[in-house]
Amino acid sequence: MRLDGRQNDQMREVRIIPDYIVTAEGSALIEVGNTRVLCAATLEDTVPSFLRGSGRGWVTAEYSMLPRATVKRTPREVTKGHPSGRTHEIQRLIGRSLRSVVDTARMPDMTVIIDCDVLQADGGTRTASITGAWVALALAFQRMLQGGVLKRMPLTDYVAATSAGIAGGEPMLDLCYEEDSRAEVDMNIVRTGGGHFVELQATAEHQSFTDDQLARLIALGKTGIQQLIEIQKGFVKLA
Amino acid sequence: MRLDGRQNDQMREVRIIPDYIVTAEGSALIEVGNTRVLCAATLEDTVPSFLRGSGRGWVTAEYSMLPRATVKRTPREVTKGHPSGRTHEIQRLIGRSLRSVVDTARMPDMTVIIDCDVLQADGGTRTASITGAWVALALAFQRMLQGGVLKRMPLTDYVAATSAGIAGGEPMLDLCYEEDSRAEVDMNIVRTGGGHFVELQATAEHQSFTDDQLARLIALGKTGIQQLIEIQKGFVKLA
Amino acid sequence: MRLDGRQNDQMREVRIIPDYIVTAEGSALIEVGNTRVLCAATLEDTVPSFLRGSGRGWVTAEYSMLPRATVKRTPREVTKGHPSGRTHEIQRLIGRSLRSVVDTARMPDMTVIIDCDVLQADGGTRTASITGAWVALALAFQRMLQGGVLKRMPLTDYVAATSAGIAGGEPMLDLCYEEDSRAEVDMNIVRTGGGHFVELQATAEHQSFTDDQLARLIALGKTGIQQLIEIQKGFVKLA
Amino acid sequence: MRLDGRQNDQMREVRIIPDYIVTAEGSALIEVGNTRVLCAATLEDTVPSFLRGSGRGWVTAEYSMLPRATVKRTPREVTKGHPSGRTHEIQRLIGRSLRSVVDTARMPDMTVIIDCDVLQADGGTRTASITGAWVALALAFQRMLQGGVLKRMPLTDYVAATSAGIAGGEPMLDLCYEEDSRAEVDMNIVRTGGGHFVELQATAEHQSFTDDQLARLIALGKTGIQQLIEIQKGFVKLA
Amino acid sequence: MRLDGRQNDQMREVRIIPDYIVTAEGSALIEVGNTRVLCAATLEDTVPSFLRGSGRGWVTAEYSMLPRATVKRTPREVTKGHPSGRTHEIQRLIGRSLRSVVDTARMPDMTVIIDCDVLQADGGTRTASITGAWVALALAFQRMLQGGVLKRMPLTDYVAATSAGIAGGEPMLDLCYEEDSRAEVDMNIVRTGGGHFVELQATAEHQSFTDDQLARLIALGKTGIQQLIEIQKGFVKLA
Amino acid sequence: MRLDGRQNDQMREVRIIPDYIVTAEGSALIEVGNTRVLCAATLEDTVPSFLRGSGRGWVTAEYSMLPRATVKRTPREVTKGHPSGRTHEIQRLIGRSLRSVVDTARMPDMTVIIDCDVLQADGGTRTASITGAWVALALAFQRMLQGGVLKRMPLTDYVAATSAGIAGGEPMLDLCYEEDSRAEVDMNIVRTGGGHFVELQATAEHQSFTDDQLARLIALGKTGIQQLIEIQKGFVKLA
Repeated sequence: MRLDGRQNDQMREVRIIPDYIVTAEGSALIEVGNTRVLCAATLEDTVPSFLRGSGRGWVTAEYSMLPRATVKRTPREVTKGHPSGRTHEIQRLIGRSLRSVVDTARMPDMTVIIDCDVLQADGGTRTASITGAWVALALAFQRMLQGGVLKRMPLTDYVAATSAGIAGGEPMLDLCYEEDSRAEVDMNIVRTGGGHFVELQATAEHQSFTDDQLARLIALGKTGIQQLIEIQKGFVKLA
Repeated sequence: MRLDGRQNDQMREVRIIPDYIVTAEGSALIEVGNTRVLCAATLEDTVPSFLRGSGRGWVTAEYSMLPRATVKRTPREVTKGHPSGRTHEIQRLIGRSLRSVVDTARMPDMTVIIDCDVLQADGGTRTASITGAWVALALAFQRMLQGGVLKRMPLTDYVAATSAGIAGGEPMLDLCYEEDSRAEVDMNIVRTGGGHFVELQATAEHQSFTDDQLARLIALGKTGIQQLIEIQKGFVKLA
Repeated sequence: MRLDGRQNDQMREVRIIPDYIVTAEGSALIEVGNTRVLCAATLEDTVPSFLRGSGRGWVTAEYSMLPRATVKRTPREVTKGHPSGRTHEIQRLIGRSLRSVVDTARMPDMTVIIDCDVLQADGGTRTASITGAWVALALAFQRMLQGGVLKRMPLTDYVAATSAGIAGGEPMLDLCYEEDSRAEVDMNIVRTGGGHFVELQATAEHQSFTDDQLARLIALGKTGIQQLIEIQKGFVKLA
Repeated sequence: MRLDGRQNDQMREVRIIPDYIVTAEGSALIEVGNTRVLCAATLEDTVPSFLRGSGRGWVTAEYSMLPRATVKRTPREVTKGHPSGRTHEIQRLIGRSLRSVVDTARMPDMTVIIDCDVLQADGGTRTASITGAWVALALAFQRMLQGGVLKRMPLTDYVAATSAGIAGGEPMLDLCYEEDSRAEVDMNIVRTGGGHFVELQATAEHQSFTDDQLARLIALGKTGIQQLIEIQKGFVKLA
Repeated sequence: MRLDGRQNDQMREVRIIPDYIVTAEGSALIEVGNTRVLCAATLEDTVPSFLRGSGRGWVTAEYSMLPRATVKRTPREVTKGHPSGRTHEIQRLIGRSLRSVVDTARMPDMTVIIDCDVLQADGGTRTASITGAWVALALAFQRMLQGGVLKRMPLTDYVAATSAGIAGGEPMLDLCYEEDSRAEVDMNIVRTGGGHFVELQATAEHQSFTDDQLARLIALGKTGIQQLIEIQKGFVKLA
Repeated sequence: MRLDGRQNDQMREVRIIPDYIVTAEGSALIEVGNTRVLCAATLEDTVPSFLRGSGRGWVTAEYSMLPRATVKRTPREVTKGHPSGRTHEIQRLIGRSLRSVVDTARMPDMTVIIDCDVLQADGGTRTASITGAWVALALAFQRMLQGGVLKRMPLTDYVAATSAGIAGGEPMLDLCYEEDSRAEVDMNIVRTGGGHFVELQATAEHQSFTDDQLARLIALGKTGIQQLIEIQKGFVKLA
């Protein structure tokens, strides 16, 4: 039995509040257990230079944690002058995951930035960010369709993410912070509504893992992602 | 009549949610109209070097805005490598205001950092931060008293802040963003529960103002602060 | 009686040397007691992006101290990579104060930068900078009028600044460094030749102050500023 | 058939020159096709603060590319003031991979830094770095054993890495730069001599991939790693 | 004939005002024609780490220009975050030149920093800085001897510097800015009172120079330095 | 006799490997004893802003050391955020030396950057960089002539550099690291194939030197440079 009484294949409770921030084109506050991330979509009328004249748009993400999102306060990144390697890694992952389900030809000459700011952190902030960012992006696109800014919905599928890991020899789904910090193996998995992989990152900490263990972790991850995509469908239903 | 139908001497609605973040020693979400600031108190077991061996403690503050707190997205400060002058100015003001009502000899060798993070901005974020920060600090101190970490309450008084300004020739209390951006004169006022000034900053933008106008703005500010201190008393009552 | 034998309502001796630097469009070395600031005006043929095409110009300021302006050497700001919060605060104040008496429509598509560099610091460097910067700016404008670069004098009024404070319970005018570092309340005041406020900043350090004390400080400040503006008139006389 | 005539399951030619740099405790120049990385091991007599007093040591890595390692020159990272997110990601991966086969209790109070500097880049620089870094580290440890600095060999296993990907629908092993830049799916795989995973990172670029495709990529990666570990054994043979 | 009517072997007028800044341990304002540099000496009670426990002291220098020292304004170095290569080169040269005539064993565990700040620049700022810095340093040491902080004068000789160059084919001494910017060859020379070289830097700009030309430049430089050292003797006379 | 058995007027063995890097327009690995520098030339289709529209091109250089080029590891410059003063000084010297033998009118609107990266350092890295950079530049120009990108060879002469110094009172040529760190006087000399000076930098460390000593050092340097230019002629022969 796990710290909070869950089964090994059981996710924490997930709650999404749409349009939490009224100033953004689309936003969502996602809660996965005690992890809370505010995702906000911003539309800008430019594209990165490598896309200029291509007729395509772009989707990108930024990620940060409030200093007191963590039980021990984390100094602001601005005090050391640049984002940490961890921050870069996470925001690249979020952006890549979203772009895998966006047809950027349907959003010509536009960029959408998704800001993912962690208000409270209890493990799985990067995967919660992906799942919540999809909702913020979908709400923004929906509004742009209604306003005539877009002609066709650029989203081609759902995309969601969760983690799995091996702690004390037990494979388990959706690790909270305490489980994660003891885990021997940690895996992040991102998959689409159509049941395909977008990203798989399995990492051993001071150890290694077998083919069978990898297979078990992937199976757990798939279960979790199916539930997350069902929740996403409750907010924006793709045709 | 004002943009949102208020009288010139009327504040926006104020709401404070105590302990909004469970990870911090004390926290408060303050809402002043559409302005929302999350204030979180962190206790650290060190003091700045100029206080070492003095038997005194320290209270300081940090301030930031989420990128999409504003209607037009503001790039993160980390991308230019250091906090802006505006950020420095505001966090120094918050720290100074709080210290004016703290007897630091009652918190020996401890520092409390108050993080003020703006989730949504509609004018008056620095004054809302001061008012909310007092609540987060008071809740943290209360808990430290209960836990025996402190012997006496370091807070000696309440402290709250609001703005007033002259827009279209009309002096008015508690400006929202739209009023603020049109104002000819802008004043921030910080006062204690005992009715004394802690800080007064009156600034003309491309103009100047008379002694009478200054007196009128101060009178408006006093009215607002009395209301704010009544609200603070609902959360922590000083002896 | 004060440290240097002055009355509470007495300013230090003020001396202004015009065109101290021959390389600048206009310059002034201002001495207020032992405080010495070199102010130099530079004309540039651009305006900040938010003014492009507006037919208006801009006036801005930069402020710095030589490392050995202070009795204890202050490391150069370049060694930590960016200006301190204090520097930002001061240079924004100087720029705002100057702009309050400039009709920027009379200097289309031009920016004037005033560099204020403190050679020796003994309190009141920011207010001395404002008073001296006005002279450097006026001299530069005068030369630009003579040279036909400008058609009308952009300055609409004089502007000067001084400080007042409460030290040992005594309100006093124009604090030197030693008085300032002991003061319970510190006020900076900026006013025009026409007798209007441009800026008022009153700050309690670890304390608070009453309405009466504020009134007394303002009265002292007004006295000082009248004297400063008389000195300014000796250098450039506005029509 | 591939660009350079290889079969899909065929690696490029691999060459390792041991002790290429005489100034380092251990070094290796690894060539995988046209990719050339110089790996150098440095022993330092400290450990990171979180390990102090633990009786354990640490192994870490740094990674960089010479500006002209690439066909189009890449500006030096120092010119923008900090390592890129990509650099951070890679050096964390190299360090983690090496630590998975090091018993840090056998190197008390010592840190080994492995510098991986890319002299020429043609795809797979991060995986070549891991494979070459193991050799540099093993040579350094061997010398430290001979010199009596260590009592037991800290390495518990071999570790090597390669890439596989899907380009034009074809799964293939060990992508060169041109193949990599066209690939729909890109996978990096790190495994031990004992046949366990240390890291698996599979990423879709603007696409997604199936369970079968993942299985095929993993099979290709295993083949490549077995060959690399045979080469490593030629330089340092673990008991 | 030269721009300002000088002979080729004639220096500009040199004027040194001792103790220009009262806050420093020693200071001198040096004027060489229109070039004006303020040199200020600071005593600190530490030494760089490589000298700790050696019984020796250290002398170092910092150099900067006020933004409007030049006819075209130069942005402050703090705005790009670090001193330029030129600044580093100059301050290393000043420090090295001073140390060549200091017996650091006579100033145990002390560091003197000489700040050289250029108020007005018209060529030769680095050589004027060396000549003026010697005076500021000598005045500070003299005061420390009188105050009993030092037992013996650490200065063992005078040191001064000037420039020479070839412009329009003519070798000439002590170039002003306009001459310097047209020069084909530029030489800085630092020599002691005893007639020895401390530093010689001769640089061709887009050209090269012969052995004879070098000899002529050195001869000119020697003449200038003798005059400078006579002036130095007027302020502090070494035994 | 010297550390490595050389005569005082004897250079270390010099070896140059042309086109060491296939990705660059021209490259050379130069070895002077144990000092090894990789020089790579990059052609870019722009010129610095001060040359735009002038019909001229530009040649510049960058210099860096791999962290483990030195016996004691040197942290990467990127970790402190900007190149050191030493790096700036060296790369400006290399660029200036090369430009003294380039007719930039023959390479209109083109910039060539020479990257000099030190793989192993044993004294004289800056002078080896100049000698090797000339070869990389000449090879790149030769290829550009063959490809029709250039009409005439922009190089007008050879240029090479070496060091000489006084250690233990003995003047000697081409100092290795150990000799250099003990030297009382250190000189770098850059001369052309035509026998003219481009740069001469003689520096006393905590000492001074006579006219005779300077003459002896220059004579030694000339001998060395003649040998280096003979080697350069073996790679590219100027008409």
